Amino acid sequence: MDDIKTIQWVNGKVRLLDQAQLPEELVLLEISDHNGIVNAIKNMNLRGAPAIGIAAAFGVVLAVWNVPETDRSGFLVKANKAIDELKATRPTAKNLFWALDKMRNALSRNLNKSIRDLKQALLKEAQEILEDDIQRCKTLGKHGVELLQNRANVLTHCNAGALATGDYGTALGILRAGKQAGKKIKVYVDETRPLFQGARLTAFELMEDGFDVTLICDNMAAFVMQQGLVNIVIVGADRIARNGDVANKIGTYGLAVIAQKHNIPFVVAAPLSTFDFTLETGRDIPIEERAPEEVTKIGAKTIAPEGVKVYNPAFDITPHYLIHAIVTEKGIIKPPFWENIAKLAK
Amino acid sequence: MDDIKTIQWVNGKVRLLDQAQLPEELVLLEISDHNGIVNAIKNMNLRGAPAIGIAAAFGVVLAVWNVPETDRSGFLVKANKAIDELKATRPTAKNLFWALDKMRNALSRNLNKSIRDLKQALLKEAQEILEDDIQRCKTLGKHGVELLQNRANVLTHCNAGALATGDYGTALGILRAGKQAGKKIKVYVDETRPLFQGARLTAFELMEDGFDVTLICDNMAAFVMQQGLVNIVIVGADRIARNGDVANKIGTYGLAVIAQKHNIPFVVAAPLSTFDFTLETGRDIPIEERAPEEVTKIGAKTIAPEGVKVYNPAFDITPHYLIHAIVTEKGIIKPPFWENIAKLAK
Repeated sequence: MDDIKTIQWVNGKVRLLDQAQLPEELVLLEISDHNGIVNAIKNMNLRGAPAIGIAAAFGVVLAVWNVPETDRSGFLVKANKAIDELKATRPTAKNLFWALDKMRNALSRNLNKSIRDLKQALLKEAQEILEDDIQRCKTLGKHGVELLQNRANVLTHCNAGALATGDYGTALGILRAGKQAGKKIKVYVDETRPLFQGARLTAFELMEDGFDVTLICDNMAAFVMQQGLVNIVIVGADRIARNGDVANKIGTYGLAVIAQKHNIPFVVAAPLSTFDFTLETGRDIPIEERAPEEVTKIGAKTIAPEGVKVYNPAFDITPHYLIHAIVTEKGIIKPPFWENIAKLAK
Repeated sequence: MDDIKTIQWVNGKVRLLDQAQLPEELVLLEISDHNGIVNAIKNMNLRGAPAIGIAAAFGVVLAVWNVPETDRSGFLVKANKAIDELKATRPTAKNLFWALDKMRNALSRNLNKSIRDLKQALLKEAQEILEDDIQRCKTLGKHGVELLQNRANVLTHCNAGALATGDYGTALGILRAGKQAGKKIKVYVDETRPLFQGARLTAFELMEDGFDVTLICDNMAAFVMQQGLVNIVIVGADRIARNGDVANKIGTYGLAVIAQKHNIPFVVAAPLSTFDFTLETGRDIPIEERAPEEVTKIGAKTIAPEGVKVYNPAFDITPHYLIHAIVTEKGIIKPPFWENIAKLAK
């Protein structure tokens, strides 16, 4: 994945790899205003909790980039409006709100500066969020290696990889670091309905990096575990509550139940930007419901009767007691999560 | 589903509803030789354990239907060859072997008859297998009603309905009988990857019959159960061992684990033709693996990187201790399954 960047700032524009078209087409989107970022997040041209935080930060920069240097009130109106609109794109991932709060703080801190310098300060903040995320992922990955057996047979769900972050990835970052450390790694990838992020993105980026990848449908994971083909499950996270409950891509909770049944450690990988220290439990994490067509249509093909009711929650909540460890850039957190997560909050 | 027949014998041909094209197109296939039946079963134009048994029985009739009335040795060669070829179509469903054994027995019983009468005897046997299956499903359905609460919130997987049987269905037969008995029934239907039998077939036939249907992706079932939206899971079966272990569509085992976690009864519905009294446990049931393209391609759309390895088991084994009850045409079997299934074998 060395040559492919998830998100880049290039000459006053944001360049995104269009994840909706992978792996069939490698298309770069050039986005010049914050509405383009709003739409890319809503339509999931870009997805993954850390990645949407980074993209949103750059969206704030785009919103003010062409404001005349004399128009201070216009600048502030545009910046605040962009932050509000970007916050409203998707409800579940904490990283989005975290990144936008950082941008709002950068704005406050630099209010006394000229518009020109204010723009540069916001750009610098967004670029730091991006660079920082890549470093967090690399550090997180190294911490996670100790959880891998020398022959690690891994199951992962959705995409918690380079494409979900600035680069390198969280769950897949652990696999990258493990490979570098000489572990022999075989990965079963859940295709991840309805949008196939596992099949389209995770299989793609792991194959690009030379991993041994086997694709399965989500409903095959239990049978794969029953046969002893997996010795660890590693997933990412969209939001983590103070007690260690984890919101992640729909299907994660079922995997955790099945992993527990087979005594397979269930590991979550996420940077601190994913933790929501304001929520005591996962019960209060809002779960996004998305359009029925994501389930009933695949490309041009309709796979269900017209007019069928669909329930399409995009995330679920895995209770903390099913989780073996949460890997962060500050190290591995183990139960009791309430106590050990509280230490991070300081 | 009153007007739609899964399998019919019409003037020396077999008419099948092409399930590969549902629900977009209602296409009837007219099949005039047993190779057409072999291909329809292999390619899953027709699927469902009881239905493939019935179709195979008619396949034997087609194989000999046009043999000259003087060619006794040719008749026997063709009948036996057809039985062997039909047996080799798919390895997991017991009903296929059960129906073909019945056809072979009918052949043996009537060997002293004229070719003309032998043909009629085989046709009569196949038609009895079909009619008998419909009656079994209706009786099974009535037995199963007592397992439904008055407000039954049901989760089902794959298609164990009219389209998987002669008519009426096994798991869905219980729902039909329950509706007739005045129960209020809401059904969550797993889409059932890779071939979407839940989305395409179960949602279709339940909507045709006026049920309240909600389609979900397979990986949403755990979240649906966690929210208390389901009070019973009912599935069909492809083969049941003497100890009550059940082979059924891939994903069934995971559902059973998740149902147990939520204290939701997990019920299997199957006629006696599904029981394999020669196998002590599910360990010895052969599990068919199907082509990678079933997972990587959906219609014209490719959803995975070219050349990715795929594991595509079509079935899994649910151990007996996860099963609350097995509903048959002879009544409801409850644990201890070993003892109670043995009584059926007599």
